[in-house]
Amino acid sequence: MPHSYRNPIPTVDILIELLDRPHRPIVLIERLHPPHGWAIPGGFVDYGESVAAAACREAQEETGLGVELIDLLAVYSDPSRDSRQHTISTVFIAAAAGDPQAGDDAKALGIFESWQLPSQLCFDHDQILRDYWRYRHYGLRPRLS
Amino acid sequence: MPHSYRNPIPTVDILIELLDRPHRPIVLIERLHPPHGWAIPGGFVDYGESVAAAACREAQEETGLGVELIDLLAVYSDPSRDSRQHTISTVFIAAAAGDPQAGDDAKALGIFESWQLPSQLCFDHDQILRDYWRYRHYGLRPRLS
Repeated sequence: MPHSYRNPIPTVDILIELLDRPHRPIVLIERLHPPHGWAIPGGFVDYGESVAAAACREAQEETGLGVELIDLLAVYSDPSRDSRQHTISTVFIAAAAGDPQAGDDAKALGIFESWQLPSQLCFDHDQILRDYWRYRHYGLRPRLS
Repeated sequence: MPHSYRNPIPTVDILIELLDRPHRPIVLIERLHPPHGWAIPGGFVDYGESVAAAACREAQEETGLGVELIDLLAVYSDPSRDSRQHTISTVFIAAAAGDPQAGDDAKALGIFESWQLPSQLCFDHDQILRDYWRYRHYGLRPRLS
């Protein structure tokens, strides 16, 4: 069946927990390219690549860390979540250890606990991070709508 | 940021549980178009549509049922899951009541308990159904790889 109409673009984002540090903090990236601000590591899923493979690849490229995927947080697909185009992000929780290093697409890389997140977060990543900490602290998964 | 390369195609599938019947059975569709066989109701996510909205729309179109999304089972994205093209399916569990009616794209519609599924299942829907029943009966979520 040919498929010619425009589709939403599949992406992944990865909440990388650093197991070898107190409070198991997470890694965020300060974007080099617009939109500027902080973001959860992630990117586009290549054709022929599973979302799990894309998540491990993007984590490696953007933080230098080899990660193990632990859980699926949710799928974020609100058409307004990225003003540039409609993306559908599968958001994973992953574990890693060691020192993350910013990749080429990052201005900076930061390690954050839940009580000290950066204020300027891109896309819907403030919502994703709220959902993530709620799930991590209280076991409540995000709503489906 | 323009985005011109080929992407995997986002889809949804919906495991619709009929609450008002003994054993809470699920609805499957016998496909009218190739590949022939039985399948979980679902389809493509439109540009500008959330995965949750797509799931409710496809469930309505293919079974006539208004559904409530209950849970996210998993995301299936193995490049070989559909031989025609690379699709990424967000698979929901949903609840409904009443009598399902086959839509235009279906040859037939069936209501199934876990011990009497049809043998000819399309795509990776045999795997999805195994994962679903394992999760429903034992609370174990599918593996992420």
